[in-house]
Amino acid sequence: MKLAVIHGPNLNFTGIRQTDIYGSTSFEEICQYIESSVGKAANIVQFQSNSEGDIIDFIQKCHHDGFDGIVINAGAYTHYSYAIADAVAGCKMPVVEAHMSNIYARENFRHKSVIAPYCIGQISGFGAESYIMSINFLIQSRRK
Amino acid sequence: MKLAVIHGPNLNFTGIRQTDIYGSTSFEEICQYIESSVGKAANIVQFQSNSEGDIIDFIQKCHHDGFDGIVINAGAYTHYSYAIADAVAGCKMPVVEAHMSNIYARENFRHKSVIAPYCIGQISGFGAESYIMSINFLIQSRRK
Amino acid sequence: MKLAVIHGPNLNFTGIRQTDIYGSTSFEEICQYIESSVGKAANIVQFQSNSEGDIIDFIQKCHHDGFDGIVINAGAYTHYSYAIADAVAGCKMPVVEAHMSNIYARENFRHKSVIAPYCIGQISGFGAESYIMSINFLIQSRRK
Amino acid sequence: MKLAVIHGPNLNFTGIRQTDIYGSTSFEEICQYIESSVGKAANIVQFQSNSEGDIIDFIQKCHHDGFDGIVINAGAYTHYSYAIADAVAGCKMPVVEAHMSNIYARENFRHKSVIAPYCIGQISGFGAESYIMSINFLIQSRRK
Amino acid sequence: MKLAVIHGPNLNFTGIRQTDIYGSTSFEEICQYIESSVGKAANIVQFQSNSEGDIIDFIQKCHHDGFDGIVINAGAYTHYSYAIADAVAGCKMPVVEAHMSNIYARENFRHKSVIAPYCIGQISGFGAESYIMSINFLIQSRRK
Amino acid sequence: MKLAVIHGPNLNFTGIRQTDIYGSTSFEEICQYIESSVGKAANIVQFQSNSEGDIIDFIQKCHHDGFDGIVINAGAYTHYSYAIADAVAGCKMPVVEAHMSNIYARENFRHKSVIAPYCIGQISGFGAESYIMSINFLIQSRRK
Amino acid sequence: MKLAVIHGPNLNFTGIRQTDIYGSTSFEEICQYIESSVGKAANIVQFQSNSEGDIIDFIQKCHHDGFDGIVINAGAYTHYSYAIADAVAGCKMPVVEAHMSNIYARENFRHKSVIAPYCIGQISGFGAESYIMSINFLIQSRRK
Amino acid sequence: MKLAVIHGPNLNFTGIRQTDIYGSTSFEEICQYIESSVGKAANIVQFQSNSEGDIIDFIQKCHHDGFDGIVINAGAYTHYSYAIADAVAGCKMPVVEAHMSNIYARENFRHKSVIAPYCIGQISGFGAESYIMSINFLIQSRRK
Amino acid sequence: MKLAVIHGPNLNFTGIRQTDIYGSTSFEEICQYIESSVGKAANIVQFQSNSEGDIIDFIQKCHHDGFDGIVINAGAYTHYSYAIADAVAGCKMPVVEAHMSNIYARENFRHKSVIAPYCIGQISGFGAESYIMSINFLIQSRRK
Amino acid sequence: MKLAVIHGPNLNFTGIRQTDIYGSTSFEEICQYIESSVGKAANIVQFQSNSEGDIIDFIQKCHHDGFDGIVINAGAYTHYSYAIADAVAGCKMPVVEAHMSNIYARENFRHKSVIAPYCIGQISGFGAESYIMSINFLIQSRRK
Amino acid sequence: MKLAVIHGPNLNFTGIRQTDIYGSTSFEEICQYIESSVGKAANIVQFQSNSEGDIIDFIQKCHHDGFDGIVINAGAYTHYSYAIADAVAGCKMPVVEAHMSNIYARENFRHKSVIAPYCIGQISGFGAESYIMSINFLIQSRRK
Amino acid sequence: MKLAVIHGPNLNFTGIRQTDIYGSTSFEEICQYIESSVGKAANIVQFQSNSEGDIIDFIQKCHHDGFDGIVINAGAYTHYSYAIADAVAGCKMPVVEAHMSNIYARENFRHKSVIAPYCIGQISGFGAESYIMSINFLIQSRRK
Repeated sequence: MKLAVIHGPNLNFTGIRQTDIYGSTSFEEICQYIESSVGKAANIVQFQSNSEGDIIDFIQKCHHDGFDGIVINAGAYTHYSYAIADAVAGCKMPVVEAHMSNIYARENFRHKSVIAPYCIGQISGFGAESYIMSINFLIQSRRK
Repeated sequence: MKLAVIHGPNLNFTGIRQTDIYGSTSFEEICQYIESSVGKAANIVQFQSNSEGDIIDFIQKCHHDGFDGIVINAGAYTHYSYAIADAVAGCKMPVVEAHMSNIYARENFRHKSVIAPYCIGQISGFGAESYIMSINFLIQSRRK
Repeated sequence: MKLAVIHGPNLNFTGIRQTDIYGSTSFEEICQYIESSVGKAANIVQFQSNSEGDIIDFIQKCHHDGFDGIVINAGAYTHYSYAIADAVAGCKMPVVEAHMSNIYARENFRHKSVIAPYCIGQISGFGAESYIMSINFLIQSRRK
Repeated sequence: MKLAVIHGPNLNFTGIRQTDIYGSTSFEEICQYIESSVGKAANIVQFQSNSEGDIIDFIQKCHHDGFDGIVINAGAYTHYSYAIADAVAGCKMPVVEAHMSNIYARENFRHKSVIAPYCIGQISGFGAESYIMSINFLIQSRRK
Repeated sequence: MKLAVIHGPNLNFTGIRQTDIYGSTSFEEICQYIESSVGKAANIVQFQSNSEGDIIDFIQKCHHDGFDGIVINAGAYTHYSYAIADAVAGCKMPVVEAHMSNIYARENFRHKSVIAPYCIGQISGFGAESYIMSINFLIQSRRK
Repeated sequence: MKLAVIHGPNLNFTGIRQTDIYGSTSFEEICQYIESSVGKAANIVQFQSNSEGDIIDFIQKCHHDGFDGIVINAGAYTHYSYAIADAVAGCKMPVVEAHMSNIYARENFRHKSVIAPYCIGQISGFGAESYIMSINFLIQSRRK
Repeated sequence: MKLAVIHGPNLNFTGIRQTDIYGSTSFEEICQYIESSVGKAANIVQFQSNSEGDIIDFIQKCHHDGFDGIVINAGAYTHYSYAIADAVAGCKMPVVEAHMSNIYARENFRHKSVIAPYCIGQISGFGAESYIMSINFLIQSRRK
Repeated sequence: MKLAVIHGPNLNFTGIRQTDIYGSTSFEEICQYIESSVGKAANIVQFQSNSEGDIIDFIQKCHHDGFDGIVINAGAYTHYSYAIADAVAGCKMPVVEAHMSNIYARENFRHKSVIAPYCIGQISGFGAESYIMSINFLIQSRRK
Repeated sequence: MKLAVIHGPNLNFTGIRQTDIYGSTSFEEICQYIESSVGKAANIVQFQSNSEGDIIDFIQKCHHDGFDGIVINAGAYTHYSYAIADAVAGCKMPVVEAHMSNIYARENFRHKSVIAPYCIGQISGFGAESYIMSINFLIQSRRK
Repeated sequence: MKLAVIHGPNLNFTGIRQTDIYGSTSFEEICQYIESSVGKAANIVQFQSNSEGDIIDFIQKCHHDGFDGIVINAGAYTHYSYAIADAVAGCKMPVVEAHMSNIYARENFRHKSVIAPYCIGQISGFGAESYIMSINFLIQSRRK
Repeated sequence: MKLAVIHGPNLNFTGIRQTDIYGSTSFEEICQYIESSVGKAANIVQFQSNSEGDIIDFIQKCHHDGFDGIVINAGAYTHYSYAIADAVAGCKMPVVEAHMSNIYARENFRHKSVIAPYCIGQISGFGAESYIMSINFLIQSRRK
Repeated sequence: MKLAVIHGPNLNFTGIRQTDIYGSTSFEEICQYIESSVGKAANIVQFQSNSEGDIIDFIQKCHHDGFDGIVINAGAYTHYSYAIADAVAGCKMPVVEAHMSNIYARENFRHKSVIAPYCIGQISGFGAESYIMSINFLIQSRRK
């Protein structure tokens, strides 16, 4: 089973920026934590980009490469990138939206996700666990 | 460890109403599924009510009875019950908001939760798994 | 044939409150008028409550008890109770929304019904006749 | 007793357009159904026009000719014709607004009637019965 | 000098409808009052219609017939007829908007004129004098 | 003289929840403080409920029992319970709205009271004194 | 093949009004240009009216007369005539919306077409060519 | 007969500022034009101030001094000074609002007058004639 | 103890303007009532002005002169004077906002106070008693 | 003559994504259809990118390379990319906006194009023909 | 060269009010800092007032006295004083808007300046340096 | 001292596009003017990109390379790129937002910067001087 985890803009600055919100664990450590948590249950490809276009390219690539699911934290693009939303809607795989922070407890503009309507569901507020939960759901739901 | 799962208005009609959205599994089966999934990892008390006031009463009772966490699916109250939101904000336990359906893929009025800002996080769209994920997070985060 | 008439919050104060809008006929007289108007055409169960939760409970009970239709005047809940709307949407019987006063000729907040979209139709402004018309429609449409 | 029934724009296309909403009964059949349902209880004059101005002219004519009441389905003009609303407000007869479809279960723009505040009441969603109910109310309320 | 006075929908019901707002002087008396007030200072053509299209036709006719100015009270069309606004904007004559009642002291929807931006100016609230003032301005400004 | 003080949802958690806003005085102490402050000037009945319906029931009971006035702090219901507002508008006694915290210095949703328009007045921000001021006004205004 | 071209309010003033937007070609010349451009590819009936009602009448007539398509420039009615929109939605022929000017580069109120959602498509900004393109599409798409 | 003309903020800069809108006639010339136009028909007191408070003071003074009417051009205060609106509403004399420019053909914020609802009427767009028309109306309406 | 009472624009017209809202007691009588009610409990300085700037000047003077508190009824400035709000926020004394009428039962624009968020609290609707309550609170809270 | 056709984000997934809207013709086939339809009438350069920045770069390149016109379907960027809009506004060539689907018959967010105001015109809803029409217009208008 | 610096309402309380935002430097020190920084490069006249009207008077005086430019920090008037905006628009000198704090990082109402559209530009957030930058720009731009 | 100047989308077209707004000085000349103005006071690195992602990448690089400050003109991204705003908020250096044109005197969408709340301040409207002022502030504020 092949799953992708997409980390959007500025998520590579986790541990550096706004540590009161995101904690001081570095981005690399989070990636490793995801890797090790999933273990052999699935083959995880992680992708980070600050570019809206590259994220769309990657989603399309996942489609062409036959991935079984995507977990996406589109960072601030979550709130206005209808182009990423179209990419999510256009690919055939199940997509789960994940956020480390509780976006509903932050600035107003973060309360709306333009991508969520095209996903299976959304998980928000559980730190790095948001990714693990998302991945586990994709693994589990496929088993059934 | 003692956890509560609150099922808000009309959730006792799961399996009866809008089966295209909620599936045909009955409410009782969902409760049993939660029960059996958690097993001995935690002591689960499940509560269903169609009454806003009763839900607040129950949250306060959880506080007084020393519960370790709450999972709440407030049904339609999610979208306008500032009174339940105040109860959540006022109790000392961690609270997770859970929805079986993806509320962001449904009617406009369901896109806003007035309760979420006062919760740890929100999980939406994974059917009965939304509850299991929420409970597991509460169990896990306490262990740390 | 079994039909329910639901009178929402403060409707038991008809004849007492705002008599310039609702007239001075008492709530009991209105209930009797409904009773006598319908006569033997249908078995009418009338229910009044000031509680949102109790109204939902009653709608669910109507469902379980095999009622053939509901006439609902949800009072002020009409304008914000998505929970009652969900109950209406979830039950299998035809539901008609009725208002004694013309809600479109009153305060702004009364111009929107969150329940109406899930009903067969809405009748507003004809005093106690609004109920009779609603009941007659349900009787008649079943005969066909 | 002399009553007018006004059918606004496109209602002469009932049975042709959007048959999933309006049914396949033709406009002529609906007119005949109204005629025959009322029988001798009142003298019914039916008027159809696609023109806002003609509808206002007709309402004024009803006033001059001493009609005892009007039932109006102003079609799409319901939602923006303040000019028809003024005509309704200006005439001395009781006016009832009627809609065959449940306008609150359709597109957003149909949720607001600019005419309703100036009518006795509004009936929406009962097919051709909406007209019969309206007429019966006018006949009945005059008898009293 | 040739001037037109356009009376929009329902203004022919002045003296009949809403006499608390418009007074009990009949439409015919108002027309005569305008006629006699202006006297030989200008040739006045008065036009009343309930039809948006006819009003546009008449404005175009004024253009073709070489009128020197128009006074328009478009009634309720004032508030939504962009088509009449276009006709006003398209004709070469000066146009003055006049209202007998103070539209800013009435319902919200009457506070906005879609026609006024394309007129020389607007006069509102002075009863029949609003017409006389408008006409006098057109006569006077041409003399200069 | 008989007066009622209504404490809405979560006010029984005063001293427990959000102590930075409400202080650490317990709900019971506040009730006693009210009791002792008023002394013999009036007979005070205090009522607390988390249920919207129960609060309406109680207001209606006050009406039937001939109370001389009500002081109401409807908690979060203040901001959306048109049903409680209707109850206030429907009863014949003077009603004063009171809030311990300054609702205008808190979250946006707390800035609007749907109940205030139907009360004599509103007092907000003076801690437990808000209740005493309200009661004193009712006592005083009756004496005149 | 029989096609209709509908020119809405004030379009007969093209060449007269706002020549900076519409150019100085007269309405008659535009009609002839359309006529001659299409040649024998289709039988073109052109219709101009300033009246909303007449335009609806004409659309219904096209339906009854078995036209194969309609090109409509509803002028200012484009922006508020839900009645024309209903007529378009109700007829069985393909309808194309055309505008000579780029409505998105003009006043705010022209940015929204209430008719477009019910058409095949919309063409805006190409002068008289907007009509030719629309007609050619209808001819072409029928050939396929 | 004693009338006041109030010129609000920046109107003393007429002829200096935005001459494309207001023309190049100086403020003093406009005052004299008003003076001479009215002649002996009324005693005119003209007042200019850039201060909101001074304008209110002056309106109150007019009240105390028994003026028979006020013509007010409150300049930019027209659009937000509820305090001046209260002063207008509070004085017993008839007040007419006048604007030299057509405020409906300018920036959005100038389209709303908070004062107009409390005046007899409003005249906008006729240059200095707006004042003369207003004064003449006050003189005339008193004669009747 | 030194307290200031600020009466904003038009409050000196109490007893003259809108006597149905404010009663017929004159402004001077209200001032004397305040004076005599407080008696020796505090030294009261009363200030009335129609000028926003003068009110700010006075608030700053209170600060410099070491007043112990301010009661402010900013009249219509309550609803838009962010400058007075800044003065209130900037001074060190406790400030209470008071209104004689219930501002929530009047025009829409009076429902929002831009000053209240910077005050201790707000009292609205109790006539001259609103001032006395405010003063008493300031006296009392200092004693503690 | 040199023309560019820009295909925005996800348009390379045409034939794969949302085939009910876009049909099952592949992106490559559409490109070839455009190519072959235009033939020798113009030299067509087609460009697809999912990246907002790359699209701006390409528009600037077209400018530098002396292209005679651009047809742009900016996909979802149409609805929020003011940066692409600036690029369109900044280049000297005529630009036509084209959409295969009728954007006015889809989700709300697709009803507004931020680019259209800076284009010559917009064509929406005609499938691949939208491109051909746009290109033909550019060819034709240059010939004149 | 003669320049004016206008300090609006409450700026004379800098160093007293909200020292976390404005710092503890007193208003007098800021004025001296401005004076000394500019030195002989320009003749600086500084003006402070809490009164909207006085600020307008002063702007007009600057115009009459032939000043070469104005730097204005209108304090809270920035956000609603269209009257000051008109004064700025009406005077012939260049005007620069300056704010010590970053108004875009504060309360919502401070995010909009009604004056900025009529200025050359705006500088916000650099403490007292905002004034120096503004003055230097005016000096520099005149030299060119 | 190391400072970066970021030029966002289309700024490389300065001198080419909209020369009435931006002047005819080329982008290269502006870059050189910045370079030469600053001289040896700081080491300036200038960066231009049309890509949102590349701008975020560059801001992160500045952080890693230990820059002492950034001046950013994000072009149209200013108005919607929450992703760039996050990058600004996340880096540790002081950031100043600069615009050559006065964005408050242009289209509505340019009136809001989503980036400004996370900057020290904003400078808008002074042409190339906006950059020099920003740089000088960063140099100066570090010296202190």
